[in-house]
Amino acid sequence: MTALPSDSVGIVVPQHVAFDSPLSLTCGAVLDRHELVYETYGTLNAERSNAVLVCHALSGHHHAAGYHHESDRKPGWWETCIGPGKPMDTNRFFIVSLNNLGGCHGSTGPGSVNPETGQVFGPDFPAITVRDWVRSQVMLADHLGIEQWAAVVGGSLGGMQALQWSIDFPERVRHVVAIACAPRLSAQNIAFNEIARQAIYSDPCFHGGRYAEHGVAPTQGLMLARMVGHVTYQSDDGLREKFGREVASGDLEFARDVQFQVESYLHYQGRSFSQRFDANTYLLMTRALDYFDPAQEYGDDLAAAFARSQASYLLVSFTTDWRFSSERSRELVDALVRARRNVSHADIDAPYGHDAFLLPIARYMDVFGAYMDRVGSEASA
Amino acid sequence: MTALPSDSVGIVVPQHVAFDSPLSLTCGAVLDRHELVYETYGTLNAERSNAVLVCHALSGHHHAAGYHHESDRKPGWWETCIGPGKPMDTNRFFIVSLNNLGGCHGSTGPGSVNPETGQVFGPDFPAITVRDWVRSQVMLADHLGIEQWAAVVGGSLGGMQALQWSIDFPERVRHVVAIACAPRLSAQNIAFNEIARQAIYSDPCFHGGRYAEHGVAPTQGLMLARMVGHVTYQSDDGLREKFGREVASGDLEFARDVQFQVESYLHYQGRSFSQRFDANTYLLMTRALDYFDPAQEYGDDLAAAFARSQASYLLVSFTTDWRFSSERSRELVDALVRARRNVSHADIDAPYGHDAFLLPIARYMDVFGAYMDRVGSEASA
Repeated sequence: MTALPSDSVGIVVPQHVAFDSPLSLTCGAVLDRHELVYETYGTLNAERSNAVLVCHALSGHHHAAGYHHESDRKPGWWETCIGPGKPMDTNRFFIVSLNNLGGCHGSTGPGSVNPETGQVFGPDFPAITVRDWVRSQVMLADHLGIEQWAAVVGGSLGGMQALQWSIDFPERVRHVVAIACAPRLSAQNIAFNEIARQAIYSDPCFHGGRYAEHGVAPTQGLMLARMVGHVTYQSDDGLREKFGREVASGDLEFARDVQFQVESYLHYQGRSFSQRFDANTYLLMTRALDYFDPAQEYGDDLAAAFARSQASYLLVSFTTDWRFSSERSRELVDALVRARRNVSHADIDAPYGHDAFLLPIARYMDVFGAYMDRVGSEASA
Repeated sequence: MTALPSDSVGIVVPQHVAFDSPLSLTCGAVLDRHELVYETYGTLNAERSNAVLVCHALSGHHHAAGYHHESDRKPGWWETCIGPGKPMDTNRFFIVSLNNLGGCHGSTGPGSVNPETGQVFGPDFPAITVRDWVRSQVMLADHLGIEQWAAVVGGSLGGMQALQWSIDFPERVRHVVAIACAPRLSAQNIAFNEIARQAIYSDPCFHGGRYAEHGVAPTQGLMLARMVGHVTYQSDDGLREKFGREVASGDLEFARDVQFQVESYLHYQGRSFSQRFDANTYLLMTRALDYFDPAQEYGDDLAAAFARSQASYLLVSFTTDWRFSSERSRELVDALVRARRNVSHADIDAPYGHDAFLLPIARYMDVFGAYMDRVGSEASA
């Protein structure tokens, strides 16, 4: 390929760390040992005050920015927001992005070998919650010598991790940026996740999660699950803009296997995802979403949960995001105000639904960049 | 059981009619012969001016009101609106309700035997459009000696048939009542239908639609398809009201197989549906939804399509219906006004999403009843 874009961090190399101290999980299980894969962008300053943690969402991983080799066709998943001069400016910040525990991109997860059995964990991998992720991210912070994050940043499920950090480790987070997020899932959210799980369970290649032992994978079920996710992460307007009712093949008038373009698009998205993601991890991630409910152990009082926090917050929502609507961000704002926290909220007018948090929308970039600029000034002050 | 409710039509008996004159379908195929099963409620007056046709939606059938025997636990699917003193008052109207061509409740469909092969049609049953349904309903009207319907009434896909009647057979329809309807599906609607179809195709028991020959049925796929439909026919608020995040079983803190109540509910709904409905018919019905686009042959001008109509219209929409939103009904209103048709539109504030059209919501019943009262006065005038 031609030279890499000048506003990219360029070639990046994933790093691995193994933790031999046990990690106690919310479900009661204990992982004696686990590994995380992560990437870093930018340079940690002498005061170690400019570190930013990026938390990924349902289908994300550690590769958030840059390229793995010169011939990479696609950069990291959040290239729009991470790089020189971008909202998370690598000229100012030392950015850490990991693959979460339970993931399928190099960190310990259902695809790893269970030391107790010598077999792949598969369905025996313990259930993981957002709190568990934060605890394992604390171990990563300690490993990197980062006492306090200038900011913990994430969209969707990633934003939930950022919120949980500020509740569970208040002294270690100065700023939280939670984008397209919610204080917990609605019944509708849970229902869509359950449909995705059922699609995976129903695949004859799932084998109760032991597909690896059978040398197969439930790609059809995972494809279906992703199709459900994909439709719900976009807005009706967005899909109309993109496809309307254009017919991709066949003739409406003589139609059994007519395909509207939106169908071919969904098939393509679902199929390619099913070939690069692990079904057990997808199940684990959707469950982590369902379980997330920081207010629960504070008598269902979200303000009480945030009362322990010492962080300031930026919340961003998108007008056509119906999965995690603007209303859900306002719930967070109300709770944070009642908890006497500093909070800014930008509701961005965009037709792209939930997926908007990945896109370079001008006002979103401006708001995000301006807030991170403040975070950076503090860090270097 | 105890005596049947006094506001019910009571015991009803399905009737069958076989048409031996060929029916040419939009897809080019010709059905030399087809049967329809239907029910009637109330009495046809001497002038034959009080007949109302009820058209069913995706998962509906001919049994819209009353009970089949004394011990029936459940009445017909639109019992809320059909009966003595109800919006479709059986003291005034002669109501006809059929199972559409392609259905799985007694009318000729994919489960019927193909006279050419002596085998069950299965996937070889031709694609059916809303226009084809109207044509076969015309044959039923002729059979019953009904020259003109006082009203053609339906919700969702049923409303689309009512609209198509007024376009294709203007002289045979005085009033159209189209509830929770749309002029055509959006890309998002089509996407959800395609996910449902993929769920069915993916079931190993589907056998390319020839499951009957294998003595099995793709119940798991059909269950998944119905779960997708069910979530999207309800509103986020409605599901929250019904279930919130209540846990049905298991302990959130020690959870792999935790179930939120909304999940058990979806499983139950999906499973029971998959045991009473045919997968090939479900595929056929979702395609009929996707194809519906009356404006298409009028240069995509909906007003031009309605210009031929001689009917008056009542449109009803529901504020939390996001599958066929109030906006879609307003598109219909605009087109009908431009076509110089009489049209009333009631947007009913209700938290129940698309499924609201089946529920006895006070203002909805009042509006529907008042309009049908006008229809009835004309009929007896």
